[in-house]
Amino acid sequence: MEKLNQTIASVGPLDAEAMQAARERQDQLTKPQGSLGVLEDLSVQLAGIQGKAQPQVDKKVIIVMAGDHGVVAEGVSAFPQEVTPQMVANFTHGGAGINVLSRHVGAEVRVVDVGVAAKVDIPGVLQKKVRPGTANMVSGPAMSREEAVASLDAGIEVAEAEIAAGADLLGTGDMGIGNTTPSSAILTVLTGADLSITVGRGTGIGAPALEQKKEVIRRAITVNEPDAADGIDVLAKVGGLEIGGLAGVILGAAANRVPVVIDGFISGAAALIAASVCPQSKNYMIASHVSVEPGHKLILEELGLKPMLFMDMRLGEGTGGALASSLVEAAAKVLSEMATFADAGVAEKNEKKTQQSN
Amino acid sequence: MEKLNQTIASVGPLDAEAMQAARERQDQLTKPQGSLGVLEDLSVQLAGIQGKAQPQVDKKVIIVMAGDHGVVAEGVSAFPQEVTPQMVANFTHGGAGINVLSRHVGAEVRVVDVGVAAKVDIPGVLQKKVRPGTANMVSGPAMSREEAVASLDAGIEVAEAEIAAGADLLGTGDMGIGNTTPSSAILTVLTGADLSITVGRGTGIGAPALEQKKEVIRRAITVNEPDAADGIDVLAKVGGLEIGGLAGVILGAAANRVPVVIDGFISGAAALIAASVCPQSKNYMIASHVSVEPGHKLILEELGLKPMLFMDMRLGEGTGGALASSLVEAAAKVLSEMATFADAGVAEKNEKKTQQSN
Repeated sequence: MEKLNQTIASVGPLDAEAMQAARERQDQLTKPQGSLGVLEDLSVQLAGIQGKAQPQVDKKVIIVMAGDHGVVAEGVSAFPQEVTPQMVANFTHGGAGINVLSRHVGAEVRVVDVGVAAKVDIPGVLQKKVRPGTANMVSGPAMSREEAVASLDAGIEVAEAEIAAGADLLGTGDMGIGNTTPSSAILTVLTGADLSITVGRGTGIGAPALEQKKEVIRRAITVNEPDAADGIDVLAKVGGLEIGGLAGVILGAAANRVPVVIDGFISGAAALIAASVCPQSKNYMIASHVSVEPGHKLILEELGLKPMLFMDMRLGEGTGGALASSLVEAAAKVLSEMATFADAGVAEKNEKKTQQSN
Repeated sequence: MEKLNQTIASVGPLDAEAMQAARERQDQLTKPQGSLGVLEDLSVQLAGIQGKAQPQVDKKVIIVMAGDHGVVAEGVSAFPQEVTPQMVANFTHGGAGINVLSRHVGAEVRVVDVGVAAKVDIPGVLQKKVRPGTANMVSGPAMSREEAVASLDAGIEVAEAEIAAGADLLGTGDMGIGNTTPSSAILTVLTGADLSITVGRGTGIGAPALEQKKEVIRRAITVNEPDAADGIDVLAKVGGLEIGGLAGVILGAAANRVPVVIDGFISGAAALIAASVCPQSKNYMIASHVSVEPGHKLILEELGLKPMLFMDMRLGEGTGGALASSLVEAAAKVLSEMATFADAGVAEKNEKKTQQSN
């Protein structure tokens, strides 16, 4: 708990002075004030995170955490568990969706085994395995509290290492067959929302399997009685190792004043855990897209985050976050590279027409 | 009319065979089928446009058309007309929003004077001036039918030149103080929608000026009686030169089987004109973002286009289109660069769990 507690204690408020300076500069750039919308807001948030009036995003790293789930024995996924290590191998060969999109936006991909069931001996995969997959949460906790903390620590360590190596933006990504099930369970426990809202089709199960998935989550919550006021308890009882790892990445980023782009549903569940153990970490989060998974909107509302991309994606791996990381970089560039009205000799607004604004 | 008619006649259907091949390849890539959502759909549309099973987007060009509007005499804009040529100069110096975002996504910016009121003698600005600003549409047509056709021709010529020079994706952008007023007028005429839906605050006018803007549009439509069945008549009577230019760019792109990303409200009005004179051109359009301007959603609905970016932008210049052009490029890369299940040795779906899908 020591590393985790130190990290949480290190998460500070955003730098109000830098944010004010960024907002003032935005208002002098050659465009109607506010007309770049979310790009302007992001630049101000980045200023507050980095503590600089003109923040920069130079090195983007997407951290893909992989783990397996004992609950797949209940038939909750459309894909077999062997796909987890196969996709981990695919990530290292550059053939997966996250590889293509990260190359496109100039981001690096870091692949971490925090809990794959099979032995993973693949060059390029960072070894942080806490245990080989979780236990089946319908018959007891997915993992112990110590293992949950270890998964959070693993994520913090990975974030720290990437930041030490120069990363100034992190993105979260996940791989783990069956991982929408624990994500839905976390969302259900932390919000009290109905399973009809929190549970979806994941990689593409049919209607009968969807009902089975809801029943599995209902039983897991009944059996384990997770404490909604204790994010670590929720993570241990109905969560997953890659979800803990990603929550750790978020906390590690926040503690080191680095923005972290949250991908889709599984990353969102990790963000809920991070926000549960450290509410201030929300200030360092940036939403990316809205997933097809129905509970994702609720996650974003809970976190107070506004997504930028509406592209009906539901792949995970960090794919939505990778695309959004490029928008965050664009926001920083707008603030630092655009000319001011004075620089460019462009006339400003007619005050008489706008002072009447309601 | 000859160039315009030839261009319209050249717009063909999408290539169904290439689209089928692209869809089949998408379904073999290492991801759940359909899980990349709009990126998959875009790749299939690109295949249909380019007539290639694996389309490519290598050279992206944003065409910014600039023009002025006689209707600014009615006090419809928050900015003075002198800003149009000042911003044109800013574009050539690289200091505007569109420059920053285009550099970020690796797109080029082409700036065209199709109707700036002032004399524009700035190196790097393409001269296609049809007339120095439109007439005030509250007292008669904004321009003659011949001038409207000339503005369309100018856009077609610019698109043809860029495509001849290697562009395989075009984006539309606009600059013209006052140009939300003709755009709202076009939208009102072509859809019959109420002014409360079609008219917004543009660059930021107050509530009294907004009422004045609606009254101006109401009068312009009453005085000119544009024929909703004739897009050229609408463009001439209540449109604008840069709007005609952008409609021409869209038609030129479609005729040459090149995708064209439509920016925000003004570009959307141009797309309505293009679709009015050539409905098949809609197949070549790609929506980018949803503008804050309230009528923009209606435009997208009319065109049957689905935006990807929700960023509360309202700058124009092609800024939303530039960001979206990178997403289109990403879509092409997903299709050509991702590994298939067979390539990567990844197991496919458990059929028994998905065949029951409803």
